[in-house]
Amino acid sequence: MDKYLITGYAGFVSRHFLEYLDANEPHASVKGLDVQEPEFQQSSFKNIRVNFEKTDLLDQDRVESIILNFQPDFIVHLASYSSVAFSWREPILSFRNNMNIYLNLLESIRKLKAPARILSIGSSEEYGNVDEKNLPLTEAHIPKPLSPYAVARVSQEMISRVYVDGYGLDIVMTRSFNHIGPFQKDTFVVSSFARQLVEIEKSGEKRGELVVGDLSIVRDFTDVRDVVRAYDGLLKKGKKGEIYNVCSGVGHSLRDIIRQMSAILNMDVSTETDAGRIRPSDNKVIIGANDKIMRDIGWQPEIPLQKSLEDVINNWRLRKSVNRPGSACGNGGRASQ
Amino acid sequence: MDKYLITGYAGFVSRHFLEYLDANEPHASVKGLDVQEPEFQQSSFKNIRVNFEKTDLLDQDRVESIILNFQPDFIVHLASYSSVAFSWREPILSFRNNMNIYLNLLESIRKLKAPARILSIGSSEEYGNVDEKNLPLTEAHIPKPLSPYAVARVSQEMISRVYVDGYGLDIVMTRSFNHIGPFQKDTFVVSSFARQLVEIEKSGEKRGELVVGDLSIVRDFTDVRDVVRAYDGLLKKGKKGEIYNVCSGVGHSLRDIIRQMSAILNMDVSTETDAGRIRPSDNKVIIGANDKIMRDIGWQPEIPLQKSLEDVINNWRLRKSVNRPGSACGNGGRASQ
Repeated sequence: MDKYLITGYAGFVSRHFLEYLDANEPHASVKGLDVQEPEFQQSSFKNIRVNFEKTDLLDQDRVESIILNFQPDFIVHLASYSSVAFSWREPILSFRNNMNIYLNLLESIRKLKAPARILSIGSSEEYGNVDEKNLPLTEAHIPKPLSPYAVARVSQEMISRVYVDGYGLDIVMTRSFNHIGPFQKDTFVVSSFARQLVEIEKSGEKRGELVVGDLSIVRDFTDVRDVVRAYDGLLKKGKKGEIYNVCSGVGHSLRDIIRQMSAILNMDVSTETDAGRIRPSDNKVIIGANDKIMRDIGWQPEIPLQKSLEDVINNWRLRKSVNRPGSACGNGGRASQ
Repeated sequence: MDKYLITGYAGFVSRHFLEYLDANEPHASVKGLDVQEPEFQQSSFKNIRVNFEKTDLLDQDRVESIILNFQPDFIVHLASYSSVAFSWREPILSFRNNMNIYLNLLESIRKLKAPARILSIGSSEEYGNVDEKNLPLTEAHIPKPLSPYAVARVSQEMISRVYVDGYGLDIVMTRSFNHIGPFQKDTFVVSSFARQLVEIEKSGEKRGELVVGDLSIVRDFTDVRDVVRAYDGLLKKGKKGEIYNVCSGVGHSLRDIIRQMSAILNMDVSTETDAGRIRPSDNKVIIGANDKIMRDIGWQPEIPLQKSLEDVINNWRLRKSVNRPGSACGNGGRASQ
């Protein structure tokens, strides 16, 4: 019976990770930590045992006592202020709730000599602006972080390396590219598009206008359900101290995403650019190579983009209130990777 | 009349920077910040105006109000927990008092739109273990930080880049190699050797034993008085957003340093290795290239190693008490770059 400690438990990725465990690791025991209560029903999990504790990862004594009591086999560190835009507005808060909470966690594990394997989540944002000739990006590509968020992620990766080599901790790292899927907050671009389009649909209109940032941006999107399968695979089979891209290997422009969504909704969509959504220095094209994770753990994405977009749209159609409470916090929250 | 805000004011480098200003920038006005009182006499400066304020850089409101009132032309950010050994023992404190205090400072400057030019001090430790074929290291060499301290320094450099490119701040960065000189704390290796040898000399012995770490380590030492001249030159003539090695371009093993000191003292010295002084993963050989700083600002080191070592030894001979109060803090303090 494997024991998983999940930080950022209330978030989008955690929710899907729990569903993955429920379906594939029937006897798993989960301890969840977050600064906020999860919105999902914890009683919905049939096969796994879950226990949530509202905890701020900046409270190191508390975290240590939890680790000591729970004795996790795996630590899935999903907690993050994962919004690039928020990091431009509040660099200190972003850094503290990415790098500092992670360092606190590592220190707890080191001090306790806890034997847990840790999954450290990084981001494709670490790579920065890249020449098209270097695409798709392999893990050997040198990070050049362009935002406060990306700096925090590279720092997290560097400190992971020091804790592996200097203190012997068992850490596997990711550079996770954009993920999409049901229940993602509308502070993330694809979810935001879907929410706006579903609102138009609900109003009975067959044509509408989207408020957007730079649509020429190309990203490598992976369905969150594929992502969580990769994460569990990395915990079981990833190599200690290694970094793995988690990505599809295929790029789509945001314009392309809108086009596909319009088709799914059978809707005529025009766009209006909001200068406020264009960031000080943004990456233009990001596409990753997933050869390494394929080779080491046999993972590859299985859910096509078309299905992901359909599910995201259907999910917004089903949400009781489109403008649900809490959606206005605008930063993705510590748990909203 | 240039106004300098100096963080880490109570420290070793600041003391020499002030002496440099006093001799070369006679009308400079200095505001000094530190968590501890300086040990040196501030009244000893004849030509510059100095004003010290005991301040923790983690107190951002205070720092902002100081910047607003003082309106500095230059910010010389010397504040640092600069001991690698301490960072292995207390990674969280080390990180907070390197990276987090720096980020706080940048945010204050950004929020206030203060036009000051900032000198961000980095470290040769950022480079990590390097192949001899890559020596001397140029600024183009990719950092691979091997200690918590080094991670903090690379993080500082990365966030500097983001603040230059993303917010337009005027920052010049260094990667400063080891520096030596009078008044350095004995938590730093050369000063520690000198203190031990002077103690032996004071006891009347002509032979003695030094407690040491790994003596095969090779470092690039620059006299602190050359270093502060480089720092002022970078503030005046360095290029915005650029990184500069501050180094001599020559490597010396610690064994070699001991040999030279023994000769100066005319003393027969044997060594005993203390395993506790050997670090989990340490860089073996570090030698920097100083072509870039020479080219851009015309700086080169002027004080030969022999004179630096003589001055360090003479300084220990003159200190009233060799085991002075405060020397046991063992971490270099926030101010002790």
